[in-house]
Formats: sequence, C-alpha cells, structure tokens
Amino acid sequence: MVSKNQIKLISSLHQKKFRNAHQLFIAEGVKGIQELLHSNFELEHLYVTVDHFETVLPSKKSLITESELKKISALTTPNTCLAVFKIPKEKAVINTGLIVALDTIRDPGNMGTILRLCDWFGITQVVCSAETVDLYNPKVVQATMGSIARVAVNYLNLTDYLKTTSLPIFGTFMEGDNLYTSTLPTEGIIVLGNEANGISAEIEALVTQRITIPRFGDLQQTESLNVATATAIVLSEFKRGCTS
Amino acid sequence: MVSKNQIKLISSLHQKKFRNAHQLFIAEGVKGIQELLHSNFELEHLYVTVDHFETVLPSKKSLITESELKKISALTTPNTCLAVFKIPKEKAVINTGLIVALDTIRDPGNMGTILRLCDWFGITQVVCSAETVDLYNPKVVQATMGSIARVAVNYLNLTDYLKTTSLPIFGTFMEGDNLYTSTLPTEGIIVLGNEANGISAEIEALVTQRITIPRFGDLQQTESLNVATATAIVLSEFKRGCTS
Repeated sequence: MVSKNQIKLISSLHQKKFRNAHQLFIAEGVKGIQELLHSNFELEHLYVTVDHFETVLPSKKSLITESELKKISALTTPNTCLAVFKIPKEKAVINTGLIVALDTIRDPGNMGTILRLCDWFGITQVVCSAETVDLYNPKVVQATMGSIARVAVNYLNLTDYLKTTSLPIFGTFMEGDNLYTSTLPTEGIIVLGNEANGISAEIEALVTQRITIPRFGDLQQTESLNVATATAIVLSEFKRGCTS
Repeated sequence: MVSKNQIKLISSLHQKKFRNAHQLFIAEGVKGIQELLHSNFELEHLYVTVDHFETVLPSKKSLITESELKKISALTTPNTCLAVFKIPKEKAVINTGLIVALDTIRDPGNMGTILRLCDWFGITQVVCSAETVDLYNPKVVQATMGSIARVAVNYLNLTDYLKTTSLPIFGTFMEGDNLYTSTLPTEGIIVLGNEANGISAEIEALVTQRITIPRFGDLQQTESLNVATATAIVLSEFKRGCTS
C-alpha cells in the first residue's frame, strides 16, 4: 500500500519545482524502469501492482492496488509499476565527439524522441538552454524509452557555452549548405531550435556552419519538418559515413 | 452562427463512420485550411471566429463565436477556424517512382508526420492497409500540416497489392542490409510497419529487400526507433543521391 503522504509526495513530482526541492523523479513502465535500475540511477522506491522486479530488495518495493497506482501515476492509462529515483548530480560536459545542443525544445515528446535518437546514433552528450523542457518531466522520461540512462544531459547558459567552445557549431536553417553534400566532421555541436521559433538570433550568430535539409517536394511550399524528424535526418547524415 | 443540427453534423465527423456516411471531413487552423483551399479539395462550409479567408464566398462562410467553435472543434484548444470539406474520390494508385506503403499505422500523429515527410521528399503516393488509421481523422489532418493536399493516399488490401507489383519491395527490420551501403533505386515500395508489431508476417513474406538502420549506440540495447523517425531516416537515404 501507499500512504497519503507518499501519494502527496509522488504526485508533487509531476511538477518541476517539487522535483527540484526533493531531488527525485518518477519513471513508469517495466522497460524504462529496468533500464534505469541497470544504470547508475539510484532507486528511492518502487511501487508495483504486478512484481516484475525480483532483483529489487523488499525494503525498496511496495505492492499496491491499481487504484493506488492511478493516484500517483502521471499517465492517463497507468502501467503496472512506478518508480521514484534520485536525480543524479549533473556531471561536467564531455566536450568530445558529436554533441547535440537544444535551444529551448519545449515539447516533452520531442525532447524524449531526440534523446532516443541520440542514443541510437551513439551521441552521449546533450546540452540544453535553461528554458528547455525538464529532463525529469514524467512525459520526457516516458518518451526516452530508457535512453535517459545512456545519454548525459546538462542544462546551462547555451550562449555562454557556445561562445567558449572551439568545436564547429552546426545549425539547420531554410537557407544553408546542402546537408547531403557538406563535409560533416566527427566532432562538433549540432544545434536544434525551438519548435515554433527555430534557433534564436543570439545562438544563430554563433553558428559556424549553416546547413539545410534539401526539400524534394513542391518547392513553392514553405512547410518545414518537425524538429524530431529533422533531428533524425541530420544525425543519420552525420553518422552514416562511420558505418562499417 | 451555427445551428444545433450543424453542430450535431460537424461533431459527428470526428468519427469515421459518420465521415464515411456524409463523405465529409473537417480541417482546423488557418494554414491547413488555406492549403486545402488552394488544392483540389471542395469546400462544403467554413466557420470562422476571425475571418482570414477573403477569397471564400460569403455563402460558404459563417462567422461564429469562440464558444460555438469549441462545440464543433476536435481540438482541446480550438483555433480561429474550422472548415468542412468533401472527401474526394480515391484515384487509381500511380505505380511509378517511390511509393510508401503503411502496414497498419495506428497513431494519427505518426500518420500525419509520415505524410509530411513524404511531401518533403517528393513522394506523392502512399498506399495503406485497410486497418491503417483513417486519413480524414481530424488528428491526422492536423498533423499533416497541409501535406494532405499534396500526397495521394489509397486504402487497399496491402497483401494483394504487393503480390501484383513488379516493383522492388523494401522493409526495415532489426536484421537486414545496411541502409547506408545498399544501392537504393528511384522506383520501389517502402513498407512501414505497425508501431507495436512492426511489419506483419504476411507482408514480410513479400518484402524483396530487407534493410536495417545501423545502430551506433550501445549494441547491447534492444531499443528501436519510432516509426516516424525511422521513416525520416529511410526516406532521406533513398532521396539523398538525387540531390543536385
């Protein structure tokens, strides 16, 4: 069972200010929780309606009812489990290889999908503007499908960070060098812009190589790709040369 | 204003059976509606709270209140306009160039994103299994961001269709030829599988070339890409050689 105080605490973790205050976040779903358990995240407590987690110590685990799970879940249709994990301390940014920089991505689904793509393409460092959606937002955790365990994410002043780097800085724009014919390095920063406004003017001024994804359809149309699909195409193009 | 009968009719169009019965569908948002108006879609009636549509005849247009719009809208946060269009007759499938085949895509957002990607990459023919989400589902129309006006979509018995084609049939699987090093033709059918189950066994048997998107991250992990981002990568790879 789960006490009233626990329900209150866990529900509060749906909000960023309480996650920050308690330094805790929630994850739901067997697969996502398994991946966090197998990584360096520290489990605070696990709540299950069906116990798929034999390796978790009994003292760290409570069997609860479906209606109790519904009270603490952030999902419309709760799974069979919800785990509370400690938010780990941010480590220093690793400034080697390819780094993805998020210039105020707002949608949790996009953030999660981008982290999943980074994980797929072996990009282990993401840096974000302070205004980017919180990594520990339950919808982000859910959408990463476990990739949160393998990609390091740092929140920082993105302008200051980009000002001090010696790495090339790539950004996608409507006008730029053709992505498919550009020489793409194995080290550099790939900036992804906000869903509605794209890359901000301040960050755009720091971009050293403007690239564009060529459009093959009716060129009269002004439509753009959404940020998650554009990220898929750009990361694929950066990495395809590295294939064996 | 909008009558009670009109509210009843338009709300019913949120459901497939009533769209089929009336052969009507709804579109919301200025941009999407503009694109449909500029294409071959026939407007039944336009409802606006703010009139951005000077070219639409007064007899085809009603000024309504925000609360009236809320009653007919399929959106949680309605826009300033909702249009009812006639569902056009399906034309014959055009069997040239690249064709995308959807093997039971269920999520309206994925369907819309895939059509938007097809539009971007100049693929104008999509064929779908009968179980694929309805093209005129309001969430699909919304997610296409106007691409619905430029991509032809046919629903058919996908197995029968693939059995009779002489085009090569590509499908993505965990095991297959490396997408980045395969020779990809300018004519062929690219099959995209269901979100949960992938390509069905029946369709898999008809695939003539199995391809895989190489994974660069931790190879111990079994995680896959979601269908929309996988589509972005595959279509980009098919078309990148055609860039000027």
